[in-house]
Amino acid sequence: MSKVRPISGFPEWLPSERIIEQHFQDVIRETFELHGFASIQTRAVEPIERLSSQGEDTDKEIYAISRLAAGSDASSRDPKLGLHFDLTVPFARYVLENAGKLTFPFRRYQIQQVWRGERPQEGRYREFTQCDIDIVDVGELAPQYEAELPLVIADAFSKLPIGPFRIQVNNRKIPQGFYLGIGITDVQAMLRIVDKLDKIGPDAVLQSMVAAGASAEQAKAALALAQINTPDESFVEQVQALGVQHETLTEGLAELAAVIRVGAEHASGLMVADLKVARGLDYYTGTVYETQLIGSESYGSICSGGRYDALASDGRTTYPGVGISIGLSRLLAKTMPTLSASRSTPSCVLVALADESDRAQGMAVAAALRRRSIACEVAPVAAKFGKQIMFAQRRGIPFVWFPASGDQSSNSVKDIRSGEQVEANPASWLPPADDLRPRVLA
Amino acid sequence: MSKVRPISGFPEWLPSERIIEQHFQDVIRETFELHGFASIQTRAVEPIERLSSQGEDTDKEIYAISRLAAGSDASSRDPKLGLHFDLTVPFARYVLENAGKLTFPFRRYQIQQVWRGERPQEGRYREFTQCDIDIVDVGELAPQYEAELPLVIADAFSKLPIGPFRIQVNNRKIPQGFYLGIGITDVQAMLRIVDKLDKIGPDAVLQSMVAAGASAEQAKAALALAQINTPDESFVEQVQALGVQHETLTEGLAELAAVIRVGAEHASGLMVADLKVARGLDYYTGTVYETQLIGSESYGSICSGGRYDALASDGRTTYPGVGISIGLSRLLAKTMPTLSASRSTPSCVLVALADESDRAQGMAVAAALRRRSIACEVAPVAAKFGKQIMFAQRRGIPFVWFPASGDQSSNSVKDIRSGEQVEANPASWLPPADDLRPRVLA
Repeated sequence: MSKVRPISGFPEWLPSERIIEQHFQDVIRETFELHGFASIQTRAVEPIERLSSQGEDTDKEIYAISRLAAGSDASSRDPKLGLHFDLTVPFARYVLENAGKLTFPFRRYQIQQVWRGERPQEGRYREFTQCDIDIVDVGELAPQYEAELPLVIADAFSKLPIGPFRIQVNNRKIPQGFYLGIGITDVQAMLRIVDKLDKIGPDAVLQSMVAAGASAEQAKAALALAQINTPDESFVEQVQALGVQHETLTEGLAELAAVIRVGAEHASGLMVADLKVARGLDYYTGTVYETQLIGSESYGSICSGGRYDALASDGRTTYPGVGISIGLSRLLAKTMPTLSASRSTPSCVLVALADESDRAQGMAVAAALRRRSIACEVAPVAAKFGKQIMFAQRRGIPFVWFPASGDQSSNSVKDIRSGEQVEANPASWLPPADDLRPRVLA
Repeated sequence: MSKVRPISGFPEWLPSERIIEQHFQDVIRETFELHGFASIQTRAVEPIERLSSQGEDTDKEIYAISRLAAGSDASSRDPKLGLHFDLTVPFARYVLENAGKLTFPFRRYQIQQVWRGERPQEGRYREFTQCDIDIVDVGELAPQYEAELPLVIADAFSKLPIGPFRIQVNNRKIPQGFYLGIGITDVQAMLRIVDKLDKIGPDAVLQSMVAAGASAEQAKAALALAQINTPDESFVEQVQALGVQHETLTEGLAELAAVIRVGAEHASGLMVADLKVARGLDYYTGTVYETQLIGSESYGSICSGGRYDALASDGRTTYPGVGISIGLSRLLAKTMPTLSASRSTPSCVLVALADESDRAQGMAVAAALRRRSIACEVAPVAAKFGKQIMFAQRRGIPFVWFPASGDQSSNSVKDIRSGEQVEANPASWLPPADDLRPRVLA
């Protein structure tokens, strides 16, 4: 048997860290539901053919799966399967498969693991959790959803101990129209270069553009566009001052202005127009989002997405959509070191036992506490009370219960932090609300 | 692109079914936490070497994963990875890996997907969800945990709309000691035959035993043992009446009697001693559990587990444990057809819009409702109120909110089931508690 050891890129949390992860997931789920998103879960696998058609970078990241002992019953008609690398591609397939049974516009959220075979590095894993919301409709998608989704994210993030953040919004039609307006035709190549602006800096971006076939003039103009960044609609004037005309550019500016206007009204200070945001995946066709933790800009985006017009189509009907995805594992990797849980177990109370013959009585006390939603456990062995208090202390359990038994005629409960011990009835005692569940402390 | 279609063995739920699944998961999670189990999640993959060492049937069920374009950076030193087929093997590895950072006895729960490449059939999938609890300790494990775990399951199942159920308990030491006492030495082979008693019947079991090398006398005695089934400790006398003596048998009888005694005291009528229960996996060493839905006995077990003494060992230290696992996907496959959700979305309220210019006002109403935990969404387009009520009806949203605007000077809310419409303040109105969240109806 091989030695037990971690596998690079497949992180796991300790119980107290998992409490923090659960808190994040619970807040995100609750926020998504408050905004009327229905939960779905999709299978972990898709046909590889479907996964690998979504952009040039995804191919090498796909994990294929195969039955270890696939023998006589393996049919060549079965599609080759791979683990999904995001939740958008499976969701688009789910919509096509179930279109007749869904009501549109369809709002769904999805919190699941995804897998990518890329090289693990800081905040980048091979297995990680994403929390997605998407809205899709049939044929046409109302434009206000592009403004609504980042507001939902702002609502969720405002309830989480992650510090200040900034949602950066762009619209792909802006660089696309602008590039066409100045005579650049390979829009995708330019977008990929612009996407690296924060990493490689403006000089390297200029050089890369020229190397990719742009003239010095074109590169300069494209860089000037990418450097525009405003908390309000003033980006429109700044773009217009660059003097480029194109119908697609005009459309993109109007769409982005609408999103930023609604953002300023309903989530003041949280959204900015940032014209360098491009996103790697090919399926985005309009608005795109990224999110930075302020002070950790170089860490990259912890929540991204955009509008896709053609991802879900069966040839006859198209279901345009817009989605945004919290990279929960990335976010936690960054914020976990600043957080702690008030205890490493859900238990609020340890029911102590003076003697093994008291176990049935201890179990009855525990059952009474649980009936009123107080998490508890009974001591593993009868032991001196000092030892039982140490057992609770090691786990951060705040209360130890001493059942009535033998020479002790009444129940009592001790707050092991203050040492205060009071008589108590298991059918009515309540801990302070703050102690009921483990808390996340910043 | 291949046509979109389901993949056999990888089921997915529609949004209203997912609400039912979430309800089950929430109740199970809450119950596990009330009993002091801490959550963990393990990575989806383990080295194949570790997975395939756990019993003869598991090998052919393992899904291996490989990077689609594993090229120059694939090192032969990297272990070959496979998807886990249960949560017990990964948990044992997690305990070994983190032993220095955990507190023992360690109580954990784990709700995750697992994968098995076996042939899909009724209630058997290739991807499915399990909900596990386990308690492990260092060196020695206190025997009362074998009685405690099925009580936790009984508590969870009593809160779920699954109808009556029966937790069947056995102890492997009983057949093991009994077989050795009558001269049968290939215990595993006999257990595998006994495990099929419900499926193939007593005559076929006798024949299989003789075919496997037992004498007619031995087979008859082994069958008589397997047919013992009592709701109380009387199984002990029935076994003793068979006249077989063996130290391991005596030990097993005492251990099972203790579990059944505690079960009768704290979960009367829910646990039985059932001496045919064997479990397929090789790692169980004492108490084993299965659970039947009463009236659907032939469907097989929906919750199983047992005690394992040697699963987690690093050569120096052994961490014996006991665990039990709810087969949530199996359970839902059986009970889903008898259940429905009161609506297909979390939204309790649809905020209607008379005119697109009212959208900001509608969003403010929605924000006010959400602040008091009322899930809602704003209408996708301004439309005649009849159309908006139909929109709500199709999703089962019970309330439509009409914001103050234009000739309407105050907010009002309509219960679209009764037609009753009342003036309401978005900062104070509350729906009936039963309408706040989607409910599961039997």
